[in-house]
Amino acid sequence: RTTTETTISEMESEPTRVMVAVNESTIKGYPHASISSKKAFEWTLKKIVRSNTSGFKLLLLHAQVQDEDGFDDVDSIYASPDDFRNMRERNKANGLHLLEFFVNKCHEIGVRCEAWIRKGDPTEVICHEVRRVRPDFLVVGSRGLGPFQKVFVGTVSEFCVKHAECPVIIIKRSAEESPQDPADD
Amino acid sequence: RTTTETTISEMESEPTRVMVAVNESTIKGYPHASISSKKAFEWTLKKIVRSNTSGFKLLLLHAQVQDEDGFDDVDSIYASPDDFRNMRERNKANGLHLLEFFVNKCHEIGVRCEAWIRKGDPTEVICHEVRRVRPDFLVVGSRGLGPFQKVFVGTVSEFCVKHAECPVIIIKRSAEESPQDPADD
Repeated sequence: RTTTETTISEMESEPTRVMVAVNESTIKGYPHASISSKKAFEWTLKKIVRSNTSGFKLLLLHAQVQDEDGFDDVDSIYASPDDFRNMRERNKANGLHLLEFFVNKCHEIGVRCEAWIRKGDPTEVICHEVRRVRPDFLVVGSRGLGPFQKVFVGTVSEFCVKHAECPVIIIKRSAEESPQDPADD
Repeated sequence: RTTTETTISEMESEPTRVMVAVNESTIKGYPHASISSKKAFEWTLKKIVRSNTSGFKLLLLHAQVQDEDGFDDVDSIYASPDDFRNMRERNKANGLHLLEFFVNKCHEIGVRCEAWIRKGDPTEVICHEVRRVRPDFLVVGSRGLGPFQKVFVGTVSEFCVKHAECPVIIIKRSAEESPQDPADD
């Protein structure tokens, strides 16, 4: 075996690294995944990975929005440092629980994966993590909103297409998958 | 074997249909492929198809721009119906020759493909053909121009992301692949 052959076979054994951005459902809340991120994940497995499980590695990123009014649904007085620590722990547990769903699916199918949480604005977090981990491409789900709805809810996917430093593929929900309020996910 | 099992195995044997839009080089002209469409094609093979050649089918679409001043480089008087017929035949031969490059590569690797030519504005042609053949996703190359350059040359890829009725992935040329004039391809 020549050096060139070694290099080529090593390159071939490097899996294609696909980053998939996932988030929680706006309807059911944690630990449920949003309809669009579940769809993006399933589309990636069905249409890209297919039976070639050793050829791909999924990088599952959950950008967790900082909860400004994090105590809204906590039925307690939130005055002590403990309250804040509990909230942080709860957020972390929620995020991990969300990622668990995706990681479990990857294990069932036999495709390698990594999963992690980053806090902050999803658009900034995703673009930052793309720069840091350099995936081959990024898959982002989208609610597929019309222009009128977009004005009010913004679109993470469009921002990523413009600013992420890797190829981006947006997977829209189908009409049947969309809830009554299309801003819900 | 139950009916469900049959259906699932049939679905699995359906390849993922990837449309790749290809065009001629602005520098070398026909039959040479543009840098960006060659890159998009090679990226698809390397990062998506990989060794799973039976899992994919490439749909190679060449949108051929209608040559308004088609006789620019023909050193003849162009007054007869024959002149126009010859031009049409030359265009067709050019387009087929361009597609041959991609089809040959697919055959070498052993991945199924279809290739065809449609005349007209590339953005309209691509979106129309997506509606007609319904690929699983579309790969489009891009010169990766800055905002200032875009104003003058337009970007087919951005139009497709917005208007094509399937997921779209844009593959940009790398800096090393770009010619001195970034509008060249």
